[in-house]
Amino acid sequence: MTTETTEARVLDAIRERRDLVNAAIDEELPVQHPERLYEASRYILEAGGKRLRPTVTTLAAEAVAGIEPMSADFREFDALDGEPVDVMRAAVSIEVIQSFTLIHDDIMDEDDLRRGVPAVHEKYDVSTAILAGDTLYSKAFEIMTETGADPADGLEAMRLLASTCTEICEGQALDVAFESRDDILPEEYLEMVELKTAVLYGTAASTAAVLLGADGGISDALYQYGIDSGRAFQIQDDVLDLTVPSEELGKQRGSDLVEGKETLITLHARQEGVDVDGLVDAETPAEVTEAEVDEAVAVLEEAGSIEYARETAADLTARSKEHLQVLPESDSRALLEDLADYLITRGY
Amino acid sequence: MTTETTEARVLDAIRERRDLVNAAIDEELPVQHPERLYEASRYILEAGGKRLRPTVTTLAAEAVAGIEPMSADFREFDALDGEPVDVMRAAVSIEVIQSFTLIHDDIMDEDDLRRGVPAVHEKYDVSTAILAGDTLYSKAFEIMTETGADPADGLEAMRLLASTCTEICEGQALDVAFESRDDILPEEYLEMVELKTAVLYGTAASTAAVLLGADGGISDALYQYGIDSGRAFQIQDDVLDLTVPSEELGKQRGSDLVEGKETLITLHARQEGVDVDGLVDAETPAEVTEAEVDEAVAVLEEAGSIEYARETAADLTARSKEHLQVLPESDSRALLEDLADYLITRGY
Repeated sequence: MTTETTEARVLDAIRERRDLVNAAIDEELPVQHPERLYEASRYILEAGGKRLRPTVTTLAAEAVAGIEPMSADFREFDALDGEPVDVMRAAVSIEVIQSFTLIHDDIMDEDDLRRGVPAVHEKYDVSTAILAGDTLYSKAFEIMTETGADPADGLEAMRLLASTCTEICEGQALDVAFESRDDILPEEYLEMVELKTAVLYGTAASTAAVLLGADGGISDALYQYGIDSGRAFQIQDDVLDLTVPSEELGKQRGSDLVEGKETLITLHARQEGVDVDGLVDAETPAEVTEAEVDEAVAVLEEAGSIEYARETAADLTARSKEHLQVLPESDSRALLEDLADYLITRGY
Repeated sequence: MTTETTEARVLDAIRERRDLVNAAIDEELPVQHPERLYEASRYILEAGGKRLRPTVTTLAAEAVAGIEPMSADFREFDALDGEPVDVMRAAVSIEVIQSFTLIHDDIMDEDDLRRGVPAVHEKYDVSTAILAGDTLYSKAFEIMTETGADPADGLEAMRLLASTCTEICEGQALDVAFESRDDILPEEYLEMVELKTAVLYGTAASTAAVLLGADGGISDALYQYGIDSGRAFQIQDDVLDLTVPSEELGKQRGSDLVEGKETLITLHARQEGVDVDGLVDAETPAEVTEAEVDEAVAVLEEAGSIEYARETAADLTARSKEHLQVLPESDSRALLEDLADYLITRGY
């Protein structure tokens, strides 16, 4: 199978699951009284998104069960004991958590654009954005309590979701703290990425196993798959911030550089002697020019920093796929592997 | 028994439980890496607070079990099936949720003082305050997953906590929206108070019954006890904002009036023809004078509005106590009744 075919297959899987997930979001998170709060809460969810984490959750469920992709109803998915579990609710819950973190992060990072539309604190106001995020937070927990899984498994899924949210907060705290430091070590950066981004991928993958009653070895392996591919995903995100045109990115290209965000790319460049802080003069994404970003990217390419990030992401992806070997061989497992590849080959 | 003795008995119960709760908060929410995040998260918890909701939870556990106050270890409390449940964790979880809402509400309401110390967004900054609240949110859920209760009961407690948090957000959204309206109906105000404040009292009371495996009639009755006494509590809070010296209140007396917050008092006054919006000229709590607040209070007293609020709170308190009749008669149940009285007789 050629790479092109593999990517097409992954994109198909993402698209067909995305449509199901979007329908489920409408069902699980209806606009209700007070309407303005729920409209603000749904604003970023409605602005788009590939629903990658729900794709991981639903694929992981199929891989744990060892069944063909899209051969079962995610709303009544057979657990290993034969009882029906609403895997789609778990998938929606995790996407809702992701959306909550985007809303609060955009306030903290003063990012005014998200998915090509104004961030919630711009479209509405900061108070509404705080509250919209808080509402998504509790709705995600509510939705996760209602999967119908065996109560012990359901409670374990709640524990995992809660501890993951704590870790995401810790990761965001580190990310914010890093902005005022220029001596970040690569291992500190990787810890931050693991907490801020990768743990939610780990939870997206392992929650399916937990809810279906799989043994601990399976859920741990899926968690590690999510951690490694999630770290690779974030590193690719850092690459994309520099290499994808602003209109495709949905925000200004080079924003991370302008805002002084450290990435694996800038950390490598510093080690290579590049004056990272002097790469762009603009103080805000609104001020920076495409020419200025082009010049900065050329310096980072010259230093080998972008290539270094790509290689690190590729290594992590290879490791992520190895964790899946404990699962029975199936087309669903193969799709999880392909998805890990896609996370670092995607163009946006 | 005289009223004075009853109040002394309640204050003793609150104090001895508060000390246990504070020790448990230290155990369940230690300062860990990244330290600044956890210090900010604990800042308002450490600034004081009477721990009224944990008092309700622990008293409710004793009343459900029909045992003497303080006769059992809350960390290993016998459920109705004889298995040990960590009721203290549930109590801490609910206090942590309360603390999270204070931190985020203070940002939204631009309140700079809380419990006599700077609000978290003043002591640190808005980003840190958002993130500290988010961290407490997930920690509360984590802590609630670890009570050791029967999994089905534990999951039901999680569902109740999550739906309660959603309702608190809805209540806060209504509260914020009310600031730009001057046509609030009393029933809208009472709905807001129920969502913003009373549901957490309801959950504090009923969670104990849920975790101990009591039947639905008992947990529902305790929920209603919390709802009615929680609404009375909030109305008393509105009275105290006008009648207690600023130094005892821990913030400027009359803040609600200055900030244009509608309360049952102002709604009644409007119906009596008082020009509520003209009661104080100051635009911020920092600008208002004690004399200006005194004058406003005199007008509201003349209109009978403060007395009206006191009477409404007293009616709700009487109703709250009636719900407790389904519980076996015990000193613990009597203390829950006395606590409801205390919530509307307390001076701060």
